[in-house]
Amino acid sequence: MSTPYQYALDNQDRFLEEYIHLLKIQTISTQAEHADDVAEAAKWLKSMMLNIGMDTAEVILMPEGRCPLVLGEWQCGIDHAPTILIYCHYDVQPAEIEDGWDTEPFEPTIKDGRLFCRGAVDSKLHVMSNLKAVESWLAQDEKPKVNIKVVLEGEEESGSENINAFIAKHPERLSADIAMISDGAILEPTQPSLTYGLRGIAAMEVHVSAPVSDLHSGHWGGSVHNPIQALTEILSQLHDTNGTVTVPGFYDDVSDVTEKDRELLKQVEPYLLNEWKDVVNAPEVWGESEYNLPERLGARPTLEINGITGGYTGKGIKTVLPAKASAKITCRLVPRQDPERVTQCIVDYINEIAPSSVNVEVRPSDPKAEAALLDVDGVAMQSAAEAYTHAWGVEPVFERSGGSVPITFECMKVADEVVIMSYGLKSGRAHGPNENIYLQNFYNGIQATIKFIDVVGNQADS
Amino acid sequence: MSTPYQYALDNQDRFLEEYIHLLKIQTISTQAEHADDVAEAAKWLKSMMLNIGMDTAEVILMPEGRCPLVLGEWQCGIDHAPTILIYCHYDVQPAEIEDGWDTEPFEPTIKDGRLFCRGAVDSKLHVMSNLKAVESWLAQDEKPKVNIKVVLEGEEESGSENINAFIAKHPERLSADIAMISDGAILEPTQPSLTYGLRGIAAMEVHVSAPVSDLHSGHWGGSVHNPIQALTEILSQLHDTNGTVTVPGFYDDVSDVTEKDRELLKQVEPYLLNEWKDVVNAPEVWGESEYNLPERLGARPTLEINGITGGYTGKGIKTVLPAKASAKITCRLVPRQDPERVTQCIVDYINEIAPSSVNVEVRPSDPKAEAALLDVDGVAMQSAAEAYTHAWGVEPVFERSGGSVPITFECMKVADEVVIMSYGLKSGRAHGPNENIYLQNFYNGIQATIKFIDVVGNQADS
Repeated sequence: MSTPYQYALDNQDRFLEEYIHLLKIQTISTQAEHADDVAEAAKWLKSMMLNIGMDTAEVILMPEGRCPLVLGEWQCGIDHAPTILIYCHYDVQPAEIEDGWDTEPFEPTIKDGRLFCRGAVDSKLHVMSNLKAVESWLAQDEKPKVNIKVVLEGEEESGSENINAFIAKHPERLSADIAMISDGAILEPTQPSLTYGLRGIAAMEVHVSAPVSDLHSGHWGGSVHNPIQALTEILSQLHDTNGTVTVPGFYDDVSDVTEKDRELLKQVEPYLLNEWKDVVNAPEVWGESEYNLPERLGARPTLEINGITGGYTGKGIKTVLPAKASAKITCRLVPRQDPERVTQCIVDYINEIAPSSVNVEVRPSDPKAEAALLDVDGVAMQSAAEAYTHAWGVEPVFERSGGSVPITFECMKVADEVVIMSYGLKSGRAHGPNENIYLQNFYNGIQATIKFIDVVGNQADS
Repeated sequence: MSTPYQYALDNQDRFLEEYIHLLKIQTISTQAEHADDVAEAAKWLKSMMLNIGMDTAEVILMPEGRCPLVLGEWQCGIDHAPTILIYCHYDVQPAEIEDGWDTEPFEPTIKDGRLFCRGAVDSKLHVMSNLKAVESWLAQDEKPKVNIKVVLEGEEESGSENINAFIAKHPERLSADIAMISDGAILEPTQPSLTYGLRGIAAMEVHVSAPVSDLHSGHWGGSVHNPIQALTEILSQLHDTNGTVTVPGFYDDVSDVTEKDRELLKQVEPYLLNEWKDVVNAPEVWGESEYNLPERLGARPTLEINGITGGYTGKGIKTVLPAKASAKITCRLVPRQDPERVTQCIVDYINEIAPSSVNVEVRPSDPKAEAALLDVDGVAMQSAAEAYTHAWGVEPVFERSGGSVPITFECMKVADEVVIMSYGLKSGRAHGPNENIYLQNFYNGIQATIKFIDVVGNQADS
């Protein structure tokens, strides 16, 4: 008897060709000159959805000619069958060979079992793994016992403004029992992982000014509180030597790491430490000594200075006493922290410690998002775990991501459960030069999505 | 009997016309497209030197076609007569009406007794005051009792590299008993001032790095010592809350402010405070509480952060955890401080306080100069004081400048005494839009230089 699993294995070579076809289209959503490429990819994806047997497929044009959504649906015809919404994005970051690529960034190149191309991991891998999994199901006589919606976004790399507005306006188009967000990366080629926590975010700028204009540092130095100096004095008071944030109230709503968290995250630690050495490689691991690495990265909030500028920053020396200096700050938040309240705590503290010899202003900014904690024991997460175990032959570990996947919050509005299924690798250099995947991850991803659909359908059936 | 003083008064209108002629030539030494203008001005100044009766005048071409020097000499023929070297510069800063000028920057405009034009104060005022004073003397039957050398520089605004090299190679061409550097500004239109101290300078950059490349602040924030944060922690430890530099050894060689300094500088305080309110206008005067404003600006060393940069500094927010951050520092030094030693103290201190979680490097840089203290009781300074008292009808006050006038150090190599005679006003907006002088300052400047030549000659005579 034919199965979707066997179908996917039999068609591996053609699936790879189609994936490569999509990779060649330069769907750079941040560059207006690539609008035609993005439109071409959208049209091609819509055709594919219809060709693989979905009931409907539509290219939804976005306001101001922005990159379109592609939306497909398939109904299984079973009363009360659960609906899975699969989300991926088909747009990519810009790439130029000068950035340090060994091969042309939009010329897919296979070498030693890996495929190099811009978008290979982020996120055409996910677009194609999922569409090919759906094809493998719909090609069977015995159809899946779930309804399937697929939404492919064309501007994830340039702000996602329009999909958020679309969801707000047409929640029924994307409503589902389970939203499966397929993006991101697992820990290692042979070790799948599931993210059950995402940090939220709060952002602000700190502006310090003193003299009315830039001055000659010889003429006036020693009589004015240098705004750069004042800014460094303020910023240096935001952490203690342990790396703990010193802002009063900052940790007020933070739940402590639970025994279960500690147990789950302990398993991730060796992988993360390896990755830290590979990717970060600073002189030493830093941060709150009472928390291990995965806890610092996923379960603890941070206050990070993302940028600073003031005075003369060109070559050589210019003896300026600058009129102003500023810094950008973002905080990664954990569940129960309110971005507005955290921001207010920082504003109040900086105003309190600001010296009277300079003008200090803290300006709250976008983005703002609460953290999310997904249910490890829910149907979605447990089905995903079963899917990974089937495809990789290894049970996944559970981690809490330090980042924010903003679409998660939007999907939580239209779906009962959300699960993030990643088939890429953290070492796959998303956004960087020589972006790549292991081909095996593509094939495993297809098998995992087939299994996920299987498990969710059977669970509802039983 | 005719006198040079009367001659200058009788010829005021013509002197003004000639000054205006020079102002119209766009002698911008930093812009190659103005090389012809600079050459034209040099030629015109050479002709003027010969026309007013100097024995020799020469346009000295500089290497690589850089802006020429104009050098003129006149010998009085008296054995052992002292030689005065007059130094001024005829090049100017760039200026565009868009910078905020109310009138065309190279179209001299007279309004309410003031003359607006780029170069009006810095430093064609000084070029013309001095040449017209020399003319007023050489037009007399009774000639001055000093030898006169005039050197006019054409690239003061673009580094003075060639004049320094010229002096080193041909010290005899500029050797003198007294070098009179004519540049800069007095305190107020009716209050002349003499600068008897100049601060020196030491410069360096501080570089901090941690991760090997810019990282996603969500993915890695909390596990790496952010280089911007580490840099602010280092920089914030360079001063205490009193504004005193905390670097061990920094003040080791600093002479304390003497009773005489305190007495002289006390008189400058009200003028400087007014100017501070006008030019600086920060929320409050800052700095070492045990020193008054002129002492902080002239007699105390400083450590100033001139620039800082790190991470994302564009519009909006980017959640980067930067690989590196850096700052530029200059110190203004007072007499007896050695720039090399001060730099080493800072390098040592920063290395000592640098956390092991980041890489920190301090890179010493140019410029480097020792401070200068001119002799208030010497012939040059006392003659200058007499000259100001004659021309302004008010005795000058003595100040110590916070800045460094690098040519001072060069002149100290070829002259026994150096005096700085400024006829501009601090409010004259040198380098800024609407640069201007009070016409009366031009006329007073001519009278002052005439008197200076008179006093020096008579003193040698007696």
